[in-house]
Amino acid sequence: MSKIRVTIWNEFRHEKTNDVVRSIYPEGLHAEIGKALLECGDIEVTLAALDDPDQGLPDEVLNSTDVLFWWGHMAHGEVSDELVEKIRQRVYNGMGLVVLHSGHYSKVFKSVVGTTGNLLWGDNLHEIMWNINPTHPIAAGIPSHFHIDCEEVYAEPFQIPDPDEQVFQSWYETGYVFRSGCVWKRGAGKVFYFQPGHETVPTYHNPYVRRILQNAAHYCKPAETGFNYLYAGNSPYIKSYFAPEDEIEELKK
Amino acid sequence: MSKIRVTIWNEFRHEKTNDVVRSIYPEGLHAEIGKALLECGDIEVTLAALDDPDQGLPDEVLNSTDVLFWWGHMAHGEVSDELVEKIRQRVYNGMGLVVLHSGHYSKVFKSVVGTTGNLLWGDNLHEIMWNINPTHPIAAGIPSHFHIDCEEVYAEPFQIPDPDEQVFQSWYETGYVFRSGCVWKRGAGKVFYFQPGHETVPTYHNPYVRRILQNAAHYCKPAETGFNYLYAGNSPYIKSYFAPEDEIEELKK
Amino acid sequence: MSKIRVTIWNEFRHEKTNDVVRSIYPEGLHAEIGKALLECGDIEVTLAALDDPDQGLPDEVLNSTDVLFWWGHMAHGEVSDELVEKIRQRVYNGMGLVVLHSGHYSKVFKSVVGTTGNLLWGDNLHEIMWNINPTHPIAAGIPSHFHIDCEEVYAEPFQIPDPDEQVFQSWYETGYVFRSGCVWKRGAGKVFYFQPGHETVPTYHNPYVRRILQNAAHYCKPAETGFNYLYAGNSPYIKSYFAPEDEIEELKK
Amino acid sequence: MSKIRVTIWNEFRHEKTNDVVRSIYPEGLHAEIGKALLECGDIEVTLAALDDPDQGLPDEVLNSTDVLFWWGHMAHGEVSDELVEKIRQRVYNGMGLVVLHSGHYSKVFKSVVGTTGNLLWGDNLHEIMWNINPTHPIAAGIPSHFHIDCEEVYAEPFQIPDPDEQVFQSWYETGYVFRSGCVWKRGAGKVFYFQPGHETVPTYHNPYVRRILQNAAHYCKPAETGFNYLYAGNSPYIKSYFAPEDEIEELKK
Repeated sequence: MSKIRVTIWNEFRHEKTNDVVRSIYPEGLHAEIGKALLECGDIEVTLAALDDPDQGLPDEVLNSTDVLFWWGHMAHGEVSDELVEKIRQRVYNGMGLVVLHSGHYSKVFKSVVGTTGNLLWGDNLHEIMWNINPTHPIAAGIPSHFHIDCEEVYAEPFQIPDPDEQVFQSWYETGYVFRSGCVWKRGAGKVFYFQPGHETVPTYHNPYVRRILQNAAHYCKPAETGFNYLYAGNSPYIKSYFAPEDEIEELKK
Repeated sequence: MSKIRVTIWNEFRHEKTNDVVRSIYPEGLHAEIGKALLECGDIEVTLAALDDPDQGLPDEVLNSTDVLFWWGHMAHGEVSDELVEKIRQRVYNGMGLVVLHSGHYSKVFKSVVGTTGNLLWGDNLHEIMWNINPTHPIAAGIPSHFHIDCEEVYAEPFQIPDPDEQVFQSWYETGYVFRSGCVWKRGAGKVFYFQPGHETVPTYHNPYVRRILQNAAHYCKPAETGFNYLYAGNSPYIKSYFAPEDEIEELKK
Repeated sequence: MSKIRVTIWNEFRHEKTNDVVRSIYPEGLHAEIGKALLECGDIEVTLAALDDPDQGLPDEVLNSTDVLFWWGHMAHGEVSDELVEKIRQRVYNGMGLVVLHSGHYSKVFKSVVGTTGNLLWGDNLHEIMWNINPTHPIAAGIPSHFHIDCEEVYAEPFQIPDPDEQVFQSWYETGYVFRSGCVWKRGAGKVFYFQPGHETVPTYHNPYVRRILQNAAHYCKPAETGFNYLYAGNSPYIKSYFAPEDEIEELKK
Repeated sequence: MSKIRVTIWNEFRHEKTNDVVRSIYPEGLHAEIGKALLECGDIEVTLAALDDPDQGLPDEVLNSTDVLFWWGHMAHGEVSDELVEKIRQRVYNGMGLVVLHSGHYSKVFKSVVGTTGNLLWGDNLHEIMWNINPTHPIAAGIPSHFHIDCEEVYAEPFQIPDPDEQVFQSWYETGYVFRSGCVWKRGAGKVFYFQPGHETVPTYHNPYVRRILQNAAHYCKPAETGFNYLYAGNSPYIKSYFAPEDEIEELKK
């Protein structure tokens, strides 16, 4: 069985300018996430950054990506609209998309899912992440809850379409809650949004967070579909009784 | 109680160039839909067309619209991206959106819902519309099924996000089916897609279709929300224990 | 327009034996909920208790109830299986059901929704209830969140089928969260579970809680359906082409 | 990796009394379904029938079953309520359940899912099954649609709770449609209802139907959960700040 091809896109700016961030993620947080995924054995990882050529995602990379991880924060506006549109089409065509933390405000998330991405946020605090959907593949091996000692607060109201499934629910010590792990389908692609991952705290070293990212890579990989889901068109045969099976060749791939 | 302010946007091109269409909808199909809605008594109707100034939706119209109906077909590409973006923001802010028939390929539908809008289509045939969600407000008064003697075939695979609720399911005589009435929430707005309405057949004269459009206008009107759902921001109070109720003034409107 | 006929069923035992409970709800908590609903003007209220004849729900009461509220705790086992089955059939036939607090373990909730009702619970603590679905009719007029100074802790894992919609999400000061307001459809009936309402605290005097109960009574009232949804049967006409509309008389009521 | 332990329960009465049925399924239709599943290599199959001791499901069989397939028709009433309740609890505890064809009226389906199971039915006709959820694991390898030349008509209105996901949608030549493949979660268990399988036609010999049953066995197998989902109780530690992780030992299994 061929490996899952994951590309981890990171804005990769904080790490270059902030000593705290660099001390936690010396090679970039995408590199640390990559290490977590490589522990699985059945995943291969490509790292990509905003300041790379073609903003890190030339066509040959994007078109051979099974699951795209996305971490952005201060430079959402710099990502080209053309690239965002290419990513959206790839998701419709089956590529998985895992949006992390401040990516809720990325053009990619807003465009693919259909949302403003609006929420409340505030300083780092103690977070408890509850697993409210324990039989979901992304929750495999995760206990009923786990602690993140310090993480940026993201809080409701989180303006998202009702998730197809909510997997995690977060609690913060000063009174806030957040739908911190949500799944949507868009076209043939699966999308997972996951809240933790502020750049100034070592969240991507947390073993439960790493397990969730590993689970997400597996869950969001393209499905084995029995036909070309993206096909659309005017069928010349639609007037023929019982036409479908024999005549719509395009749907048979 | 103030009336529901519905604006019915129609591309309004077929009616000007095609005798068949003009004979069915002499004032435009938006005018006929408007007549259906006016039968309710609690709805006021504004008609808008692509060739009107500001493509029919200057800010003063759009910003005083509770529910926008959208019928477009041959000129999707002419609708300005700027207008599409304004409509998307209005939906997030609570405006309802009813997308009709070939509007599945409109920029508005694709952008608001997050989809390609892809489907199969073909010549006009007998359609039976089944009411599979009879307790939904949009199905009020609608029997278990009704016939449309002749309607353009729209068929699965229909590439849409899983609807929050599916209300209608259509059958066509040559073997096709279609999810012909679907509901999604996007931001504070409700979206309803409804399949019937080809310009060469008198579908908007069908009494069940008219009842469904009336129901949809009522269902999609802005909800009474207890706070400003679109609010987002960094809360300076997030570190204060039990802060929410007393301090996030912006959320209280 | 005729009024919504709400029957409020209360186990009504704590109030008779516990001075604290009696001091808060001298006539029973169902009487206090009834007062809240009567404020609406378009609701009529019947009170029912376990120790009344026919356990409070003789057929003539049950069959003329539009929405049944249910509060039980220590005597779930005393409710007769025959009555539970009658209630289940009434819900399938369109009666609304609002299950309160410890009713999560009632036979009625477990049977109608299909669940164990399992959860964690513990002593009374400060609860913040977040409104995560502000455009839902049950959230009408409710702010982004409100405080209940003291309420029994109900906590995840809450073993329920994925709600059709979640409206409220609760936070407790010691680290717990709970899906505290959830909606399901069962048959033609709507079901709302709402967490607050421990008998030793004055929760049903809270104005936001009262508004939510009022909203729920309106939301869960039977829908106007266009046919007899409960109809089932072997159709002798199913082999006739295009039979449905003309021939299945039973579906037309 | 250990095999998936599937038990296929069949009423197994038609095969003994009806020559047509016996000619299609000489060893019982459960035996034919078993052959389909054994083609996978990673499934082991146990056959069970109503007239076996303990109605085919003694505790040692039920408690070692990962996924239970259920086919019943004329003898639903003979299945003991005690057995139905045991099955319901096993599903809550993670066992998968695949309900076939006329099982929509079985006590097991009605009790686990929470429904009347009502629908319309009629004589055998041509059915086309559309795959409307091609990225769902149960649809893996299935084309956009396939034909079943002759199958009993099951038709809407099908009185079921909104499925968590609908996978298949069926068309019948005389005007009917049906939600023919639906998924629900109940407790820790996954439930799949699949319409085809009348005893007088060779549906379980159809290669697409066989593939779907194989996919369902894999999809419905118990999930790897990180804690004991069925745990419920009063936590003595709930007043301790940040108690959850360290103290609720029962949730850690």
